[in-house]
Amino acid sequence: MKVYLSGEIHTDWRDQIVAGAVGLDVEFSAPVTDHAASDDCGVAILGAEPDKFWHDHKGAKLNAIRTRAAIDAADVVVVRFGEKYKQWNAAFDAGYAAAKGKALIVMHGADHQHALKEVDAAALAVCETPQQVVDMLRYVQNGTLPS
Amino acid sequence: MKVYLSGEIHTDWRDQIVAGAVGLDVEFSAPVTDHAASDDCGVAILGAEPDKFWHDHKGAKLNAIRTRAAIDAADVVVVRFGEKYKQWNAAFDAGYAAAKGKALIVMHGADHQHALKEVDAAALAVCETPQQVVDMLRYVQNGTLPS
Amino acid sequence: MKVYLSGEIHTDWRDQIVAGAVGLDVEFSAPVTDHAASDDCGVAILGAEPDKFWHDHKGAKLNAIRTRAAIDAADVVVVRFGEKYKQWNAAFDAGYAAAKGKALIVMHGADHQHALKEVDAAALAVCETPQQVVDMLRYVQNGTLPS
Amino acid sequence: MKVYLSGEIHTDWRDQIVAGAVGLDVEFSAPVTDHAASDDCGVAILGAEPDKFWHDHKGAKLNAIRTRAAIDAADVVVVRFGEKYKQWNAAFDAGYAAAKGKALIVMHGADHQHALKEVDAAALAVCETPQQVVDMLRYVQNGTLPS
Amino acid sequence: MKVYLSGEIHTDWRDQIVAGAVGLDVEFSAPVTDHAASDDCGVAILGAEPDKFWHDHKGAKLNAIRTRAAIDAADVVVVRFGEKYKQWNAAFDAGYAAAKGKALIVMHGADHQHALKEVDAAALAVCETPQQVVDMLRYVQNGTLPS
Amino acid sequence: MKVYLSGEIHTDWRDQIVAGAVGLDVEFSAPVTDHAASDDCGVAILGAEPDKFWHDHKGAKLNAIRTRAAIDAADVVVVRFGEKYKQWNAAFDAGYAAAKGKALIVMHGADHQHALKEVDAAALAVCETPQQVVDMLRYVQNGTLPS
Amino acid sequence: MKVYLSGEIHTDWRDQIVAGAVGLDVEFSAPVTDHAASDDCGVAILGAEPDKFWHDHKGAKLNAIRTRAAIDAADVVVVRFGEKYKQWNAAFDAGYAAAKGKALIVMHGADHQHALKEVDAAALAVCETPQQVVDMLRYVQNGTLPS
Amino acid sequence: MKVYLSGEIHTDWRDQIVAGAVGLDVEFSAPVTDHAASDDCGVAILGAEPDKFWHDHKGAKLNAIRTRAAIDAADVVVVRFGEKYKQWNAAFDAGYAAAKGKALIVMHGADHQHALKEVDAAALAVCETPQQVVDMLRYVQNGTLPS
Repeated sequence: MKVYLSGEIHTDWRDQIVAGAVGLDVEFSAPVTDHAASDDCGVAILGAEPDKFWHDHKGAKLNAIRTRAAIDAADVVVVRFGEKYKQWNAAFDAGYAAAKGKALIVMHGADHQHALKEVDAAALAVCETPQQVVDMLRYVQNGTLPS
Repeated sequence: MKVYLSGEIHTDWRDQIVAGAVGLDVEFSAPVTDHAASDDCGVAILGAEPDKFWHDHKGAKLNAIRTRAAIDAADVVVVRFGEKYKQWNAAFDAGYAAAKGKALIVMHGADHQHALKEVDAAALAVCETPQQVVDMLRYVQNGTLPS
Repeated sequence: MKVYLSGEIHTDWRDQIVAGAVGLDVEFSAPVTDHAASDDCGVAILGAEPDKFWHDHKGAKLNAIRTRAAIDAADVVVVRFGEKYKQWNAAFDAGYAAAKGKALIVMHGADHQHALKEVDAAALAVCETPQQVVDMLRYVQNGTLPS
Repeated sequence: MKVYLSGEIHTDWRDQIVAGAVGLDVEFSAPVTDHAASDDCGVAILGAEPDKFWHDHKGAKLNAIRTRAAIDAADVVVVRFGEKYKQWNAAFDAGYAAAKGKALIVMHGADHQHALKEVDAAALAVCETPQQVVDMLRYVQNGTLPS
Repeated sequence: MKVYLSGEIHTDWRDQIVAGAVGLDVEFSAPVTDHAASDDCGVAILGAEPDKFWHDHKGAKLNAIRTRAAIDAADVVVVRFGEKYKQWNAAFDAGYAAAKGKALIVMHGADHQHALKEVDAAALAVCETPQQVVDMLRYVQNGTLPS
Repeated sequence: MKVYLSGEIHTDWRDQIVAGAVGLDVEFSAPVTDHAASDDCGVAILGAEPDKFWHDHKGAKLNAIRTRAAIDAADVVVVRFGEKYKQWNAAFDAGYAAAKGKALIVMHGADHQHALKEVDAAALAVCETPQQVVDMLRYVQNGTLPS
Repeated sequence: MKVYLSGEIHTDWRDQIVAGAVGLDVEFSAPVTDHAASDDCGVAILGAEPDKFWHDHKGAKLNAIRTRAAIDAADVVVVRFGEKYKQWNAAFDAGYAAAKGKALIVMHGADHQHALKEVDAAALAVCETPQQVVDMLRYVQNGTLPS
Repeated sequence: MKVYLSGEIHTDWRDQIVAGAVGLDVEFSAPVTDHAASDDCGVAILGAEPDKFWHDHKGAKLNAIRTRAAIDAADVVVVRFGEKYKQWNAAFDAGYAAAKGKALIVMHGADHQHALKEVDAAALAVCETPQQVVDMLRYVQNGTLPS
């Protein structure tokens, strides 16, 4: 089972899921989570841009080579919305995954519930914690529920 | 040409585009922009829910009948990000449209540039004003530039 | 908007929806609802079969020419489960429509809730009455809620 | 060859097929067949629901992560209709598989023949016993008929 | 309903179907049935070829512009196998239509039954006469059986 | 029949085809053929760019809104290679059309034959003159050859 | 590279290709070539049929489980037309493969050239001997031509 | 990660990329780069043609068996435009890859910038050197930037 972990990059939620899923036959993928590298990859490789828009544009497209291939290959796409920032790229990934027919799991706190209702409506599961994602992956793969 | 106008519902940007496009052979569609109706449509028709999550869930799914059909039918999807709110549904629509191969136009102010870089990277045009959308639709259809 | 009305053929639920939707820009389609004609169409046109299996087989395939084209062309597929019979063809249509990415509305009484949970989980709306279908179609098309 | 075994969970038909297919290069998949776990998985992981509809809804969607991925990956989908219950999920799976272009094998007793005629009409084979499924898988893979 | 009439071009079966379907809302299409024009169209327009293979190749490709567009647009593809010639193009069209998910009707005499078993197995109806095709189209469209 | 006319914009080949096709039921589309407008459309509407790369980039993407929608809608794509310039956009359109399964007609002089062999190999017809395109469209639609 | 070998089952052309391709990284698949088993597989496993049409129908559908999966998985489909029989299933496979976008190689003697012109027109190569198929597979994989 | 290297065959840019990517988990594919073999493969295997058009046609189609399968299997398609020749096949590959939704990287010198603007507009990255391609592949796979 291939699982793509999209969204928030400032907490260790991905590590918690990967650690919790030890023993399962799951292959995880994710965007580059080094914030600086992710922001500057375009100009670092393809040349500097004086205009911030094109600076970001080159980087976002280069990152898209990684993220779209990973989402296209995934069986399950988990999208985490954290407490900070606009996180429009996370919502974009959710829409992209939904249109591609991927099984979508959305993870967010209760305070974001109303603002995320359209995203949640496209999901097969909505949860709050990494442990719930692990429990779901284990159930989906082995049929066993947490005791 | 079918154009879907996604995103912000609290300003009159859709009206400006529709007014500006008079004389063009364009058919516009949009989500329900009556905020109260959009929020409550699910329970109003399908029965009340004590839990706000399911209240919103019913509404978001009912709205999806309209929005997905409209995006699927569109040649061009314009997504407007305004000044307020999370607007994750707008970013979701952008991701959905990108995955479906729709021509994507994103409209937003300069202050949102960095946060929207992944969305902009998937677009065929990024602009700031309704007039620019009108100018693009006229050029795409007639080949004439604004004088 | 094209709406396919699948399922139960022994009550007048289709007529109620069509009557209620007068004034909306909706084009309805449905299977052949003449039970005898639907059962015997294959042998009536293509020749008798001594074996009931092939008698039914010829008819079911001939009916499929109509039903699959209609579902494939539909924006919305409404599937009604009535009180009687196995109605496996209704559930089959729901699965077929879900796989084709159609907006699915399921209509059934409360007593069938548990048995239909997988079908309901694939739907964008679950309701009980023809009036609710009409209300949804009006809302989806015009954005107006029942007063 | 990947074979998904859908439908009835109260008899040992899956075990018979798996045992009979020893020596063939077949990879079997199936839904979670622990009835209690399957019914309660949603609330066990994602939180209790006072309303039975949403209790079932959460579970059905979580199960769909497993079943849709398995059907999407399958070359052959075998759907078994047993003697009891409505089994609408089995018919839903058959419709879903048919729309996805999967090779469909339907297994049921003679008494269900008329009610399943639309499902049978979409199948490449209709049979009654697990042994027949094994014989078909062997023939399809090795070209050898039962002696 | 769009119906493509493929196969034999030496009898008037197409005319019989078109005449019989008067009053139905059916749009018929067909290959070019002028045998000489069909054979020579390539070289007549694109220049002579000394090698018969390329003479035929140019013509077959030019005809494919018409036939593939017509099959792609059709809801129903009727393939007629006559008494003479190899008619491999008819079988090719049947395979092409089957792969595109078109409703396939095959028409042939009883003597061709065994040789056409794979083609018939992909069809939703197998018949012998133009009248049967008309009867099916009328039933599929209006639900009425021949009296 | 929808026909997209791609490629060279410095001769009147499109006009010749449109004039020759009078009386046929053909709807033609084409890129914007005003060279200056096509080059500058991006910056004229979306703002100036000091870097020629982004100047061109904005324009090429805006033009793509028109050209991709037109190719996607076309039944036949005619690609004309003229005597001058690199014309890589014409070859790009041919590849795009081939991948989308469009009927491809390539038009070019004999001197380009070897360099265009991969493009020609994907075409259903290769010709040299607008008149040949008209003759093919007439034959494809009416079955009549030039006298 | 996966190569499906369709068509004639009465000569050893498949064995010649497999033997010639030793050393290449090619995985071959084919229909069941035991003529008796292929004809009778349906009734042998699923029960006798008094009517020859249904006898053949059951067998043809069971064989389709194998052949369609193999063609769908193939990169290259080779279709051989021999000297005898109608071989409509070979032409059907060619049409099916063409519609699925498979690379098609057609093999036949010169006497069938005119009758197969539509099939040949859909192919990427037309040849006469198994050695030519082997030479092509070697060239496609290794870039080496026969010395 | 599967990467197809399309375009120029007269410099060693492919070797540079393959050498630079040692240690990455990348599988490279490419067209046959032996110019003489590529030009003559068709007639060498399938028989001589007196007409240069058909000589080239046979070769181009045989090469297409390799190139289309490789592009269809690729995650990333790199297209290199060199200093010489028309290179329409490179632009054709770029259009084909874009329509198939592949991640497209275009490599060319600054002098080709304007002529390639439509091709560049479809790319996720535009670069000049093999080292930049290697740096991108490393970043996409490992998230590490060149130091």
